[in-house]
Amino acid sequence: MKKINLASKYNKINEHWSPKVVAEMNDYQFKLAKIKNDFIWHSHEDTDETFIVIEGKISIEFEDETVELCEGEMIVVPKGKKHRPFALEEAKIMLVEPKGVRNTGELINKLTTKNNEWI
Amino acid sequence: MKKINLASKYNKINEHWSPKVVAEMNDYQFKLAKIKNDFIWHSHEDTDETFIVIEGKISIEFEDETVELCEGEMIVVPKGKKHRPFALEEAKIMLVEPKGVRNTGELINKLTTKNNEWI
Repeated sequence: MKKINLASKYNKINEHWSPKVVAEMNDYQFKLAKIKNDFIWHSHEDTDETFIVIEGKISIEFEDETVELCEGEMIVVPKGKKHRPFALEEAKIMLVEPKGVRNTGELINKLTTKNNEWI
Repeated sequence: MKKINLASKYNKINEHWSPKVVAEMNDYQFKLAKIKNDFIWHSHEDTDETFIVIEGKISIEFEDETVELCEGEMIVVPKGKKHRPFALEEAKIMLVEPKGVRNTGELINKLTTKNNEWI
């Protein structure tokens, strides 16, 4: 049985906006990411997506409001809901979502990362 | 959009070993629990189960080893694997698993709690 230490895993992440898988539960994955500055508007048509803030502060802009999340706070973004995460300072987040979800949702652009990259 | 503050949610938990739902993502749930002392041996035949330690230190005994988990550590217990969580001092954990999972697995006893209790 292998436990996962989040701080050790974050030490292996050098880029922003590039979620890395640290654990799998059934067909779902736990991914860690460091984020800073702006991400793009996108949505995931087939699944909800969970954000948990492990360190720092992030914001998620929705079409009608912006939600600020600090360390120890989480939110579930419903499937199909357009959102744009951003962070003024570097923050550490955990994402929980089904295996195979593209980080940029329905879009493919320079921010699209490889899927299923484990650390 | 409603964010969830874990510390506020923990303030609403008075019992040990009684996971409360704080969020739902597709057909999965995020549950918070305070735990202390011993739980029973059990397994979940149909699903993996994720433990994330939010505060304190817990142990999970397996048939062949015992894993200690501190704040910021997590583990995925594979489906069917017998395990027995315990904590010498009160600890705060998050569980992630499909909706409807019984806390005592295949057993029903005095530690079995109601399912789907939201806080």
